[in-house]
Amino acid sequence: MTNLNETHDPSLKSWLASANEPSIGFPVQHLPFAVFRRTASREPFRPGVALGDQIIDLAQLASLKPFSGLAAEALNTCNAPTLNALMALGQSHWSALRLALSRGARDHSPSQATLEQVLVPQAQAEYSLPAQIRDYTDFYISIHHATAGGKISRPDAPLLPNFKWLPIGYHGRASSVVISGHAVVRPVGQSRPAQSGQMPRFGPSQRLDFELEMAMFVGRGNAQGKRITIDEADQHIFGLCILNDWSARDIQAWEVQPLGPFLAKSFATTISPWIVTREALEPFRLPFSRPDSDPQPLPYLMNESVKQGGVYDIGLKALISTDHSRAAQHAPALLAHSNLCHAYWTLSQLITHHTVNGCNLQPGDLIGTGTMSGPHPDQALSFNELSVGATQAVKLPWGQERMFLEDGDEITLQAECVKPGYPRLSFGQATGKILPAV
Amino acid sequence: MTNLNETHDPSLKSWLASANEPSIGFPVQHLPFAVFRRTASREPFRPGVALGDQIIDLAQLASLKPFSGLAAEALNTCNAPTLNALMALGQSHWSALRLALSRGARDHSPSQATLEQVLVPQAQAEYSLPAQIRDYTDFYISIHHATAGGKISRPDAPLLPNFKWLPIGYHGRASSVVISGHAVVRPVGQSRPAQSGQMPRFGPSQRLDFELEMAMFVGRGNAQGKRITIDEADQHIFGLCILNDWSARDIQAWEVQPLGPFLAKSFATTISPWIVTREALEPFRLPFSRPDSDPQPLPYLMNESVKQGGVYDIGLKALISTDHSRAAQHAPALLAHSNLCHAYWTLSQLITHHTVNGCNLQPGDLIGTGTMSGPHPDQALSFNELSVGATQAVKLPWGQERMFLEDGDEITLQAECVKPGYPRLSFGQATGKILPAV
Repeated sequence: MTNLNETHDPSLKSWLASANEPSIGFPVQHLPFAVFRRTASREPFRPGVALGDQIIDLAQLASLKPFSGLAAEALNTCNAPTLNALMALGQSHWSALRLALSRGARDHSPSQATLEQVLVPQAQAEYSLPAQIRDYTDFYISIHHATAGGKISRPDAPLLPNFKWLPIGYHGRASSVVISGHAVVRPVGQSRPAQSGQMPRFGPSQRLDFELEMAMFVGRGNAQGKRITIDEADQHIFGLCILNDWSARDIQAWEVQPLGPFLAKSFATTISPWIVTREALEPFRLPFSRPDSDPQPLPYLMNESVKQGGVYDIGLKALISTDHSRAAQHAPALLAHSNLCHAYWTLSQLITHHTVNGCNLQPGDLIGTGTMSGPHPDQALSFNELSVGATQAVKLPWGQERMFLEDGDEITLQAECVKPGYPRLSFGQATGKILPAV
Repeated sequence: MTNLNETHDPSLKSWLASANEPSIGFPVQHLPFAVFRRTASREPFRPGVALGDQIIDLAQLASLKPFSGLAAEALNTCNAPTLNALMALGQSHWSALRLALSRGARDHSPSQATLEQVLVPQAQAEYSLPAQIRDYTDFYISIHHATAGGKISRPDAPLLPNFKWLPIGYHGRASSVVISGHAVVRPVGQSRPAQSGQMPRFGPSQRLDFELEMAMFVGRGNAQGKRITIDEADQHIFGLCILNDWSARDIQAWEVQPLGPFLAKSFATTISPWIVTREALEPFRLPFSRPDSDPQPLPYLMNESVKQGGVYDIGLKALISTDHSRAAQHAPALLAHSNLCHAYWTLSQLITHHTVNGCNLQPGDLIGTGTMSGPHPDQALSFNELSVGATQAVKLPWGQERMFLEDGDEITLQAECVKPGYPRLSFGQATGKILPAV
């Protein structure tokens, strides 16, 4: 691990007691970004960094001019309603700002009084999208998800021949990406006729589903026609969040050929408010390897950095509550859990593959991983997989069953980094509740 | 035709002689929008309206405050580098501005001297994208294109069962949409192995193609979760341009399953600079009908306006020049011609279908029709169709042959509205030249 620096020292503590509390998950080693304001206020949305149960208000901090050099330049972009300008600066600026914030937030920091002036309790905050998302791409990099889905639609050949050679992806709808907490209206649309040649069914989706994914925000972009090599790719990743790729399976099955998912996905995509920087995740990198029976990635998708630490160890959980469970005061039930380490392709490979044809990425672009299901049945991160294509009802602990989502159901997606000897890093959560069709 | 008004009077002439010249195609009945500046100047890009061989500089005109009411409000949005703010205002404002410009540009207008102050010759102008495109969607609404493509990949069942029930579409890449004249670098990527199980080929695309489409710019958008009905759809269409959906067929064939085209398309999409307003196209509407043997559209996609005039009569042409033809001073050769009237779905149906699930459109969104091939072989608007899947070389008049595009080839797409008794409306053109892979 050559990319660790003083900000990753596991022994660091903060002068803010809640930052040292593992259950909160926002230690001084973490420092994720969001865009926030005080709930229901008329304040402008502006960038902040999580510390314990507080938010460091970066717009207000910028006005105090506490930093110099690259850190000051980075901080000066934060008097804005999005993080796009910070994302555009690049890794040197991000690292300088992280280092300055880390030093300021540590025990015995001379900057403690300055930072204390600009803290806003997370309990009083609401969040907006952290960036203007110009383009949203979604990949499909869990071989377990691809195989499980393929078994349902193509039992004889569940995994398509291209899967092991390139990261499969498609363009998603950027306009309908919403921040955690927004309700999701059940989509209406056409679905496959009961019998071939008959009229399609038209109405509210009867197979509404969630998908637990991770997503990355692009930092610096690339010029059109100029690819980002695998050696450069990491430097273009600003950070990661959780993503729920809501999916209407019945609409999807009817519309998907030959051009891919469209209205089945474009009604809403929910992301978590905190962007965990790639730098904060350095301690959680794992080696990348392929089974000997699988092809090795083509040279444009491989280098030593991928091999040594291309994979991230990030634990994922999907929980559900229903109108019934909330009325009866049951805690949300765990539906499934998994880990980003089950990805068949690395995040850097996604960046490089996305641009190999000259496609230009821009700061604030959102790139999803696809459903991050793991190898075991309880690691299936969608109802379509959990119910094996709606053949086996999923039993909820309070006695209800589900094949797909019903109105009033709320899905909560969580992610965290946990390992012995290092403070726990929380990604927060992405929640969304289903409202009846209009 | 109840939507015609005084701006459509075919007898109107302008005080600007070139506006009355059919070969130029920008009469006073037309008044399309672009964003321009003087070529190679440091002037800001700003909106303009074409009149004859000139451009009415709307930013400069706004500073003279010649209009009142809605027209003035509309003009005041034009001191900007894009048309998004004008697009967001809606049909009443667009119509008021069109009427004010029409009255000012007519023979004997008292505003002649005012408008003359703000003319810029088109010969001295360069163009930028007319809007910030937040999302780009591409449809697939020519049954002839769908059938021709299907015959190549699925000879037994060329047309999929969903085609006649819903407009098939997918999300495209917004960041790589460029304005006419930008060169297109040949994309690099993976393509299908020569034999199943072997390593894919990796390198410059060997099957680079064009596709002639029309596209519309969305005007006012809709809130997420709230669909645009078929009765409202026309009012959300700001105007139309020409679009070249450059496509790498070999990359596409390998990556397309199961999520649709991705890198095969995302390297570049070229549009023409002029947006022809929907209002200007009113005289060219035709009735919509389906053969009795085909299903009628579901009720959410039909109304009297679609039936009476949902179709637009817009002639389309694709031309090619090559390094050889330009050196020998041959004129570009016509590859194919067609008409938007061959569309199986109307533009209003695309808007309504796109939002039926609650997906939100935003001002400046770009929505392509898909390749607008007609029923005859010489109406095939891509090399893939013209060469019948690379089985029959396309002969060029100067002796060269093509299956697909070679480096140095330049494609020029043109569109126009022509009918007896009405001035010709030109869409201008969308050109792009292929540069060698990097």
